[in-house]
Amino acid sequence: MTKIRAAIVGYGNLGKSVEKLITQQPDMELVGIFSRRDTLDTDTPVFNVAEVEKHTDDVDLLFLCMGSATDIPEQAPGFAAFACTVDTYDNHRDIPRHRQVMDEAARAAGNVAVVATGWDPGMFSINRVYGAALLADRQQHTFWGPGLSQGHSDALRRIDGVQKAVQYTLPSEEALEKARRGEAGGLTGKQTHKRQCFVVAPESEHERIENEIRTMADYFVGYEVEVNFIDEATFDSEHTGMPHGGHVITTGDTGGFHHTVEYTLKLDRNPDFTASSQIAFGRAAYRLKEAGQTGAFTVLEVAPYLLSPTPLDDLIARDV
Amino acid sequence: MTKIRAAIVGYGNLGKSVEKLITQQPDMELVGIFSRRDTLDTDTPVFNVAEVEKHTDDVDLLFLCMGSATDIPEQAPGFAAFACTVDTYDNHRDIPRHRQVMDEAARAAGNVAVVATGWDPGMFSINRVYGAALLADRQQHTFWGPGLSQGHSDALRRIDGVQKAVQYTLPSEEALEKARRGEAGGLTGKQTHKRQCFVVAPESEHERIENEIRTMADYFVGYEVEVNFIDEATFDSEHTGMPHGGHVITTGDTGGFHHTVEYTLKLDRNPDFTASSQIAFGRAAYRLKEAGQTGAFTVLEVAPYLLSPTPLDDLIARDV
Repeated sequence: MTKIRAAIVGYGNLGKSVEKLITQQPDMELVGIFSRRDTLDTDTPVFNVAEVEKHTDDVDLLFLCMGSATDIPEQAPGFAAFACTVDTYDNHRDIPRHRQVMDEAARAAGNVAVVATGWDPGMFSINRVYGAALLADRQQHTFWGPGLSQGHSDALRRIDGVQKAVQYTLPSEEALEKARRGEAGGLTGKQTHKRQCFVVAPESEHERIENEIRTMADYFVGYEVEVNFIDEATFDSEHTGMPHGGHVITTGDTGGFHHTVEYTLKLDRNPDFTASSQIAFGRAAYRLKEAGQTGAFTVLEVAPYLLSPTPLDDLIARDV
Repeated sequence: MTKIRAAIVGYGNLGKSVEKLITQQPDMELVGIFSRRDTLDTDTPVFNVAEVEKHTDDVDLLFLCMGSATDIPEQAPGFAAFACTVDTYDNHRDIPRHRQVMDEAARAAGNVAVVATGWDPGMFSINRVYGAALLADRQQHTFWGPGLSQGHSDALRRIDGVQKAVQYTLPSEEALEKARRGEAGGLTGKQTHKRQCFVVAPESEHERIENEIRTMADYFVGYEVEVNFIDEATFDSEHTGMPHGGHVITTGDTGGFHHTVEYTLKLDRNPDFTASSQIAFGRAAYRLKEAGQTGAFTVLEVAPYLLSPTPLDDLIARDV
């Protein structure tokens, strides 16, 4: 089998996860990492991102592991000129525009760009569409978490006396049960999620700190809030990861009969799973181009078998 | 919008569910039902199944709602000559052969046949492939139930003194939890599922009947078995439905980090949900033909957006 020659653009958490997980893929090899920095702490060859056109002949697929805030919108179309691309652009409202721009760039170069992969957008998007297509008379809810919230963790750390802190957002069990019964119709985000804080601080300050948390407008007021004070050793061993996940729940009525479809992710390390999805859809980008396609594809436009390194006939025999 | 002109072949539980649920589809109309019987208890036009060729010009899509034991293997290829087809053939081991035969028949006629839709095969197949494609270093388990088992219910009813009885097969909670932790590797079907019986019988017979159930070789010995004696009114109100469902659980390791992907179905009425899937994939069959495709497709080869009556651009704006 000719391996897909892949390269990574950007070397933050996501790029590092892709680098690690490509080694698990039987059909891919990692050619190098394109970065603005001259040296990176890795054994993978590092190339200057400004010289990507020098490597066009050696690379089939670019994993665009850049930030969604400005890098992806500004730079992604340029990369689509050089090779197939796959990104994890996660600005939901802007995805139609991004797809359009990437479509033009990829089409002009005869490449395929798969956009907005990962898990939300990504696997959750797919499950929203499947759930809604299966159940015409339906309710659908997406829940996120338990997941680390960077902004809320920062807010906790700004409180006087707080030494270390993290905040996880998680679905309320009651709201999940309501969604499964199709009774979560009028619920807002504040009613469906709770905020769980783990804080390291001197014991004499606990009462004041807890009060400051519970009364912090915009961040915590109106939510179910749980404040846990823990010691530093517990914090360091249990609360330095990047867990995330969630649920897409679709319920439907078929003339008096209730049906529940639920897709659940429980992820110990958010960037690793986002990278897992990006890698699978990167494979699909390459295979779509091999099949003569060009242009941009969202995850909704990619047939499931294209994500797998296993040949279609084997998948049909094993998994259907 | 031109509506998809659909017809149903076969009028058992599945055909009746398709008939009911087509009315919920904005883009389909039901032209008629093809049956071996002259009259059916329905307001839908009924046609003789031997005269299907007379209706070729009026029908875009045939829902093949026939049995998997003999009808689908014998008759499905013939129908692919007349229109696009979608079936729920569920003989897993024979699906590669069935796809091949349907591919030849559909291709020769310029039609599209989507094969083996429903939920297992069907949505569970898709989730097995997605789960495995996302997590290279993985374990994967499928659990079925709580679901009515016809064969085991019949076995209960053959016991002397049993007036009414049903048997549900359901996953053991312990096995589910092990699968979610990636620790269910060596478990067999007997260890992962339990058998739940609801029996109506005279009280004086309970002890003997329970003993006969628990010692019934092949059916109950070796399983975790729960026997519940209930009164006839409870039986009639709570145990005459056709519930089913299950879980596809994939766990994976990304270098010391654990990830769980779980797809769960909880279905009050098995044929209604099977029909829901068949209808969505029937829509895809029609659209694939409109796009110039011919031949047979498994659910793995159909991009998710093709299942939805909502235009792609709207799906991208709403669900991605």
